[in-house]
Amino acid sequence: MRILISGIDGYIGWALALKQLSLGNDVCGIDNFSRRSHVKEMDSWSAIPILPMDERMKNLKEKYGEKISFFEGDLLDAQFTNEIIKNFRPESVVHLAEQPSAPFSMIDQKHTVYTQQNNVIGTLNLLFAIKNFAPKAHLVKLGTMGEYGYEAGLEISEGFFDIEFRGKKATIPYPRQAGSWYHWSKVHDSNNIMFACKLWGISSTDIMQGIVYGTRTNEIIDEQDHTRFDFDEAFGTAVNRFCSQAVIGHPLTIYGEGGQTRGFLALVDSIQCISILLENPPEESEYRVINQFDEQYNITELAKKVQNIGNKKGLDIEIKQTVNPRKEKEKHYYKADHTKLKELGFKPTRLIDDEIGIMLDDLIKYRDRIEEKKDSIIKLLKW
Amino acid sequence: MRILISGIDGYIGWALALKQLSLGNDVCGIDNFSRRSHVKEMDSWSAIPILPMDERMKNLKEKYGEKISFFEGDLLDAQFTNEIIKNFRPESVVHLAEQPSAPFSMIDQKHTVYTQQNNVIGTLNLLFAIKNFAPKAHLVKLGTMGEYGYEAGLEISEGFFDIEFRGKKATIPYPRQAGSWYHWSKVHDSNNIMFACKLWGISSTDIMQGIVYGTRTNEIIDEQDHTRFDFDEAFGTAVNRFCSQAVIGHPLTIYGEGGQTRGFLALVDSIQCISILLENPPEESEYRVINQFDEQYNITELAKKVQNIGNKKGLDIEIKQTVNPRKEKEKHYYKADHTKLKELGFKPTRLIDDEIGIMLDDLIKYRDRIEEKKDSIIKLLKW
Repeated sequence: MRILISGIDGYIGWALALKQLSLGNDVCGIDNFSRRSHVKEMDSWSAIPILPMDERMKNLKEKYGEKISFFEGDLLDAQFTNEIIKNFRPESVVHLAEQPSAPFSMIDQKHTVYTQQNNVIGTLNLLFAIKNFAPKAHLVKLGTMGEYGYEAGLEISEGFFDIEFRGKKATIPYPRQAGSWYHWSKVHDSNNIMFACKLWGISSTDIMQGIVYGTRTNEIIDEQDHTRFDFDEAFGTAVNRFCSQAVIGHPLTIYGEGGQTRGFLALVDSIQCISILLENPPEESEYRVINQFDEQYNITELAKKVQNIGNKKGLDIEIKQTVNPRKEKEKHYYKADHTKLKELGFKPTRLIDDEIGIMLDDLIKYRDRIEEKKDSIIKLLKW
Repeated sequence: MRILISGIDGYIGWALALKQLSLGNDVCGIDNFSRRSHVKEMDSWSAIPILPMDERMKNLKEKYGEKISFFEGDLLDAQFTNEIIKNFRPESVVHLAEQPSAPFSMIDQKHTVYTQQNNVIGTLNLLFAIKNFAPKAHLVKLGTMGEYGYEAGLEISEGFFDIEFRGKKATIPYPRQAGSWYHWSKVHDSNNIMFACKLWGISSTDIMQGIVYGTRTNEIIDEQDHTRFDFDEAFGTAVNRFCSQAVIGHPLTIYGEGGQTRGFLALVDSIQCISILLENPPEESEYRVINQFDEQYNITELAKKVQNIGNKKGLDIEIKQTVNPRKEKEKHYYKADHTKLKELGFKPTRLIDDEIGIMLDDLIKYRDRIEEKKDSIIKLLKW
């Protein structure tokens, strides 16, 4: 299969590229390196060092030859986007090239506008390029469970639900009630993609992904294979941040009551899921929505897991409630469907406790790097 | 009341300014004149000639003095937007400054990207300016009934609806299923505004407006008062286009079966509705959605009305079905609530038949202008 990965330099993009190459697929990657510069803007870096792209490519080309290619560029550049699709003629496009941080989008007006413009217009350009130059390609788009929001008090279906209203029945999109400008940019994207499928007959899988954690996949073996691992307040996410805090003796900080419940997924299983979806594309012109996570936890449960597992490794870990910088409910009903991937054959390969153990072992090696940038862990970006 | 009107040079913006000035309110208008240039791009013009803005202002200043002011500028320019709000300190902001044409948004990639960027980012900048410099201002935003879409087969409520799903009840946003890139840009705006109300406590009324028709309001008396009246395929809308076709002996063109049902509203009553909403703002931090139209008609009924009324005026009018250039159902169930405005005191002042008569009389005077640009009536912008 010929797979284009936009955002190949990112956390998931890089791990996915390694996996797809190992499966014998052709991978073309694009990236504008915005993640590297945004994390730098947060005065941070990847806890686990990653190589510059030219070295990453040199290593991959030694192993996979012409199966891998890379082009630096930006989806906001319509001409670049068109040329890539025209020349590579992908059978699948995995679109990960978005500004992925809610806190980053909430910093100020400039960051809000940047996030929505980058994500919405980048996705639009990609949709047009697919329509014009690879109309049969399967677009796999990374969205987030956060698009649905967490506070409606209803069970969450996978994308669409059947309702009856005033005596008439219909299957309609599950209403989205996102909680940050970033999350809304993903909703706008989902809406645009749904429309493109209807309008042009494009096939797309829109992944509502839970929060991903982990340092490893089956293809990440040597140091040179590592994917980035962020721990700063904007680009680090729950479990990854807790593990980073744990290895430097920083209290695990939970926001407010810590009853926020989310779906979680190990990195290796996220890559497994995306690979399954690539192998099992939807019908022509189908807009398929997938809820992609393994188990639900609330933030306090996760902090306690990291504490217990860390304690066994001799780490001294404290849990500390901080003022919640976000406008969100700290305790809420949450139950979301996630059956479609299981029906396609997804079997979680990791227990979260084991994975946290591996993460702590990996991160202890880079303790100094986290220590050096520890001020980036808590900046209290408020909203 | 101090009212900022963004898009004051447009069809509704101008008529609303005249109305609000006549009520004794202070009006500040802004515009980037994009409508004039976009209609020119369609190789067309306003059927009824309108004055350049400096002359419009000269006339208004003679009558209303310091009550009216105007600034040329673009909401994409955050600094301009901030300065306007900071200096004028509006109590109400009526936001009409969007690219308002579905066909225009569907021309090609450039027009799609322009439409979504202009509308989404312009609205974001306005939201930030209100938050920072006039947090108590009431934002009245013009959306469209087309945000809901026309094909779900369910009754349409006003913004939110109560549902039960798997034994739990909730009031949630009515799902949007728009039918053009333009309509989706309005959905994105609605979502962003809903979030800003929740996040910052802004009060907003989001108007889901039906299709507006007419040449007159109570304040449009002399030639110099006239608001623009478009008839080209992109910026002209159903009834206005039929009347324009009728006066030059062009067949009334309906798309496909002509069973497309929409809500309609006379211009004078649209202005009445917006004025009522300005007088009756929502609560602090409320996001209020209003369905704003008078009666529902399908396209064939409307064509027949124009034909009958035109015939009585001696016009020879033919109705012609053309291939539908749009991807839409040509016949569908349609029933939408529109009770909130009535509860606030809205009483329609026009019967559609009378209004069509007035429109034909007005347009007959400008027959030559429509004739000269008649090629812009049908360009078959496809989607």
